[in-house]
Amino acid sequence: MEVVQVLHMKGGVGETSYANNSLIQKKVISMTKPITEGAITELYCSTYPASIAIADLGCSSGPNTLFLVSELIKVVDSIRQKIGQKSPEYQVFLNDLPGNDFNTIFKSLPSFQNKLKKQLGPGSGPCFFTGVPGSFYGRLFRNNSLHFIHSSYSLQWLSQVPEGLESNKGNIYMASTSPPNVYKAYYEQFQQDFSLFLKCRSEELVAGGRMVLTFLGRRTDDPSSKECCYIWELLAMALNDMVFEGLIEEEKLNSFNIPQYTPSPSEVKSEVLKEGSFTIDCLEVTEVNWNPYQNEFDLSDVFKDSGYNVAKCMRAVAEPLLASHFGEAIIDEVFRRYREILADPMAKEKTEFVNVIVSLIKG
Amino acid sequence: MEVVQVLHMKGGVGETSYANNSLIQKKVISMTKPITEGAITELYCSTYPASIAIADLGCSSGPNTLFLVSELIKVVDSIRQKIGQKSPEYQVFLNDLPGNDFNTIFKSLPSFQNKLKKQLGPGSGPCFFTGVPGSFYGRLFRNNSLHFIHSSYSLQWLSQVPEGLESNKGNIYMASTSPPNVYKAYYEQFQQDFSLFLKCRSEELVAGGRMVLTFLGRRTDDPSSKECCYIWELLAMALNDMVFEGLIEEEKLNSFNIPQYTPSPSEVKSEVLKEGSFTIDCLEVTEVNWNPYQNEFDLSDVFKDSGYNVAKCMRAVAEPLLASHFGEAIIDEVFRRYREILADPMAKEKTEFVNVIVSLIKG
Repeated sequence: MEVVQVLHMKGGVGETSYANNSLIQKKVISMTKPITEGAITELYCSTYPASIAIADLGCSSGPNTLFLVSELIKVVDSIRQKIGQKSPEYQVFLNDLPGNDFNTIFKSLPSFQNKLKKQLGPGSGPCFFTGVPGSFYGRLFRNNSLHFIHSSYSLQWLSQVPEGLESNKGNIYMASTSPPNVYKAYYEQFQQDFSLFLKCRSEELVAGGRMVLTFLGRRTDDPSSKECCYIWELLAMALNDMVFEGLIEEEKLNSFNIPQYTPSPSEVKSEVLKEGSFTIDCLEVTEVNWNPYQNEFDLSDVFKDSGYNVAKCMRAVAEPLLASHFGEAIIDEVFRRYREILADPMAKEKTEFVNVIVSLIKG
Repeated sequence: MEVVQVLHMKGGVGETSYANNSLIQKKVISMTKPITEGAITELYCSTYPASIAIADLGCSSGPNTLFLVSELIKVVDSIRQKIGQKSPEYQVFLNDLPGNDFNTIFKSLPSFQNKLKKQLGPGSGPCFFTGVPGSFYGRLFRNNSLHFIHSSYSLQWLSQVPEGLESNKGNIYMASTSPPNVYKAYYEQFQQDFSLFLKCRSEELVAGGRMVLTFLGRRTDDPSSKECCYIWELLAMALNDMVFEGLIEEEKLNSFNIPQYTPSPSEVKSEVLKEGSFTIDCLEVTEVNWNPYQNEFDLSDVFKDSGYNVAKCMRAVAEPLLASHFGEAIIDEVFRRYREILADPMAKEKTEFVNVIVSLIKG
């Protein structure tokens, strides 16, 4: 599986699209706002640059794509108004893998730009938006050309499925039943990828440039912890049931592994220190419920089914990967079963995603 | 009709897509190579910049999109090798309206970039590609951020259908039977649009920056000349026939006009001089046969039908415009009739598109 070609959130604006099923990711961006806003404020106030280049890496396609960036621009605009500074020009780079649905983003841009213009104060500088297709595990931008980099819920994706996972039979990610070499292979791939990421970004950022990264991660040092593995173990259950019933070949399942690694804060910190280009401004961990509608009232009946909600979220993220390996035909059935399987643990346990957030300054 | 939302070449890679029907446009880019290569050579050799930012405006989606840019990069790379200069970094901006099929371009980028890397000499700098959705009749890039701008067969498109064309009944463009105010309305829209274009680009280009623009145009000063109007008059014939047969409402046809203006070299020159930011390095006129397979041997039978070839080219360009006004349902029939109508004049007359090429230097 070529991750660069296969991995992308589900495109379009249909019912199962990522655009319509990315509320969790939006919540995480909102939760992280104090950190991102603090970082861009410090950046802007340190030099008042005449132009600010902002990149969002793994921007996907949907309401979240432009949400974060517009928040950042509003922060800068409000400061420059308060202090009577001339507005900078804004250059926004929206990056994702080449399979991402950029067309849908681009079609929404004219109305978004009109709206943003109205929200900003008079005299606000122009905002130029560009799409940058490519893997962030490689160079994407010119030397010293960026001021601010943001990435949320993207860096847990690896550049490839780690090698040497033949022994991870019946699992699709690190799982409580995975042999030790599986954890090792995943962790080494993460180290290699994240350290390359840091090196590339340090070349692209100006001195003093800032970077805020949010990983889907884990709190504990134990990589087999339920807090990161369970969500995939339950999906593996659905797939194993279908193998048992002859709907999926066993060999197909054994050869499938998710190219993801959910790091702990200490693993993130250790790579940053090793790579050496950045100082850590802050490193935090938060949690968000698997069910984006948790704690919401006034829900229509369908959204009261937490299994339904979570299965839809996960489908928008994982469908292209699964379809490329198993074929389109089984997708509906996999997620129907997944929804049922999710119901029980979600009723009984605290089921949460863990977010590891790090704010970095290029030294 | 909102041109910004409606105008785009036909997307995808299907049989009637622009990607598969843009040979004329490729020929024109090839014919213009001596001028574009001369311009980028002079640009590079005047300052040997450490990074070169190139924009292609109206890049569309298909083989032509990356063809011209890769030729420009090869020219610079070959010079820097000869003189032993360190390679610049290349930043490429691919611009078109938001309805353009950027997804198809982006998916082809990884293999294109690998191929380009192999074609360039050792030590060649990285090439960063970005997509820029938006109208070039407005600012698209930061101040002083571009070195080289290219645009081919795009600037004849206007920002809107000129106002006051109610009297242009039965026609879809300037035609021999159009009343004088129609020519005036079209020409004034061209003047307004092109002068805004020049102003925006002059803000975006660095001092000494270069711009090579190729218009679908005309040689003569007469705007009603067959050399620019005839191709649309023949399409109007097909539409009028369908009105006559009750397949299209007369009112629908009367309210449809193509947002295009095919300028003469002196009209182009006059706007450049009036706007005042650029000096003209050269201004040329060339011709290319309507039929891209003209003068080619070894053709399969279907491509021997010049009406078929031209109707397909024109469909890839005009289908989204027509479909948005008349509906999808009539498209096949319009172009079937157009093909038939084209056969006769193409057998009897010299049917050629006229290219007006101007190479400019920011003063």
